[in-house]
Amino acid sequence: MKFNGRNTNISANAIIGSNVKIGDNSTIYANVEIGDNSIIANDCVIGEPLNDYYFDETYENPKTIIENNSIIRSHCILYAGSTFGEYFSTGHRVTIREKSIFGKHCRVGTLSDIQGHCTFGDYNWLHSNVHVGQGSSLGHFVFIYPYVILTNDPTPPSNLCIGPIIDNFAQIAVSSVLLPGVKVGKHALVGAGSIVSHDVDPYSLVVGNPAKKIKDVREIKNKKDGGTQYPWPERFDRGMPWSEMGFEKWAKEQNDYDL
Amino acid sequence: MKFNGRNTNISANAIIGSNVKIGDNSTIYANVEIGDNSIIANDCVIGEPLNDYYFDETYENPKTIIENNSIIRSHCILYAGSTFGEYFSTGHRVTIREKSIFGKHCRVGTLSDIQGHCTFGDYNWLHSNVHVGQGSSLGHFVFIYPYVILTNDPTPPSNLCIGPIIDNFAQIAVSSVLLPGVKVGKHALVGAGSIVSHDVDPYSLVVGNPAKKIKDVREIKNKKDGGTQYPWPERFDRGMPWSEMGFEKWAKEQNDYDL
Amino acid sequence: MKFNGRNTNISANAIIGSNVKIGDNSTIYANVEIGDNSIIANDCVIGEPLNDYYFDETYENPKTIIENNSIIRSHCILYAGSTFGEYFSTGHRVTIREKSIFGKHCRVGTLSDIQGHCTFGDYNWLHSNVHVGQGSSLGHFVFIYPYVILTNDPTPPSNLCIGPIIDNFAQIAVSSVLLPGVKVGKHALVGAGSIVSHDVDPYSLVVGNPAKKIKDVREIKNKKDGGTQYPWPERFDRGMPWSEMGFEKWAKEQNDYDL
Repeated sequence: MKFNGRNTNISANAIIGSNVKIGDNSTIYANVEIGDNSIIANDCVIGEPLNDYYFDETYENPKTIIENNSIIRSHCILYAGSTFGEYFSTGHRVTIREKSIFGKHCRVGTLSDIQGHCTFGDYNWLHSNVHVGQGSSLGHFVFIYPYVILTNDPTPPSNLCIGPIIDNFAQIAVSSVLLPGVKVGKHALVGAGSIVSHDVDPYSLVVGNPAKKIKDVREIKNKKDGGTQYPWPERFDRGMPWSEMGFEKWAKEQNDYDL
Repeated sequence: MKFNGRNTNISANAIIGSNVKIGDNSTIYANVEIGDNSIIANDCVIGEPLNDYYFDETYENPKTIIENNSIIRSHCILYAGSTFGEYFSTGHRVTIREKSIFGKHCRVGTLSDIQGHCTFGDYNWLHSNVHVGQGSSLGHFVFIYPYVILTNDPTPPSNLCIGPIIDNFAQIAVSSVLLPGVKVGKHALVGAGSIVSHDVDPYSLVVGNPAKKIKDVREIKNKKDGGTQYPWPERFDRGMPWSEMGFEKWAKEQNDYDL
Repeated sequence: MKFNGRNTNISANAIIGSNVKIGDNSTIYANVEIGDNSIIANDCVIGEPLNDYYFDETYENPKTIIENNSIIRSHCILYAGSTFGEYFSTGHRVTIREKSIFGKHCRVGTLSDIQGHCTFGDYNWLHSNVHVGQGSSLGHFVFIYPYVILTNDPTPPSNLCIGPIIDNFAQIAVSSVLLPGVKVGKHALVGAGSIVSHDVDPYSLVVGNPAKKIKDVREIKNKKDGGTQYPWPERFDRGMPWSEMGFEKWAKEQNDYDL
């Protein structure tokens, strides 16, 4: 229903893999490479030209790479100069600026706004309406929930840009703010509505403004049966690389990630 | 000015009522029914196919119903499988996922993101940029203000989904978060920036993180003349069913709602 | 790449200056005036008709003015009846309602939602996803950071509309809320995640819920070298009118602004 070739606009200098679908009203700019079996839905802009394009007649679009088996839902704007690993997927109306690098199996939710020059590991799940300031750096298996903001200017306005750093398996709950340059440790959990002004230790649950540690995440019980819930990979495997063998077995056999 | 039939795309399997206007660049997918006198403005997508569409060749779009006298402003995406009662209206760039049910006279503001499988009563007014997680349930005459988030996963990430429940006449002020499964009582008011982790009693004003009751809403005075302001239906009637006869008289005569 | 005249729709009653570019899929409605050297990127709607348009057959679009050297990035909706001073620029997907007035050199970030009937001075920089309620009033050189909300109804729902007032050089950090009618003084800084319920004195740093003064901004040290950082115009000049001569010299020579 979406792929009728109506009002699509694909640059002659784009490289489109095999079995790629491109939706109605979408535009693919020059020097975009789209991997095999990927889907670009309707009303998307892929390879959006950088700011210089408007003012520099010699402007050339930098390379944009979307790897195999990705799905970009409708109305997204992905700037030129970023790289998206395989199985990348988005919700609607996502905006991602230039020079960001995504690992594989990342998801970015509806309305999220990635400001560019950011680094994402593998299996990062950003839910709806997440704002990631320039220069942020995320590890692997990081979950960011709606309306979270990663900031980067310690004394605004300035020309400094010191993005937060989030380690593997950490989670940031809804409506929280990471202040510039804070480090969030492995398996940490930032509670809803927190303002994080200091580094968060691994396995810590922090809440409040300013965010303070209230317990170790391994002490959190789930409400259903009172069992422990964290570290979460032992309880959750949907879409994860350990989904078939279990986390413990996978952890022993894998060498890709720092657990 | 908006209705020139330019680049519109209407499925042969859509049912369009009488006196319906459909704006330029809008797409109406299969099995959408649009009631009489409704307006779909420009650049909208109505009956957006569900996720299975991308991967299942036998996919059929579930039925989407927009009842009479509705107005969908520009750039909205309404998924297939939801139902919108009469006089439904939206701002711009609203996204509503599948299998949500809206009563009549509901309004959903610009940029709001309804995640699907939610239930809304009549006369729900959601302002700009409201995020409603899957499985949320709202009564009648509920007001939700900008950047409010309704969450549903008590121990993320998990496969649990326990949405908040909001009773008739309750209000949630800007930038507040309802944590999973909380119940907000009738006529309650959640103050701006609150993190609501426990049920809120009827007629309570709660504020803070975690939100705590600070007074009964009936003790709140307005700043203009020092008079009481709540319960609000006694003071506000714009767009409400009691707008001609007054709340007291209407309350006695009506049988539709649990007051 | 963006300016191929594909699916553009320009009213015969629009006035387009010299050297103006209008992007693919953009619509310019009646009675819009676009100044020389301005750029309207792709998928924009300029002069969006007001609500009456849908219901009143005699509707006429009020005048919309975008002054010289402005750049409107893609997917913006600017309602009819607003005025944008020269060198106005936006990010993507900005929505600005009717009857707002912007001074010169203002910037409005991606996803921001300006509700109309607002007044902005010169050099206002609104970052991503700022929500400005009706009737707000900002001075000159005001910085608003992502997910800030300016509210206007002291006892919702009501028909009152008392917007905040922000004085010159003030800054509002991410995820803060200004409650209805609060005044933020000159050079004040509202810290991240604050709920501002009372007026903020000039040169004050306030934080928390409710926001309280914790120090004078002139006592804030930057983390880089421990030097003072505020008042910010003495340390920051990118894009500012004092960028060539320095703030001190400019301040002595200028007569346009109340310093």
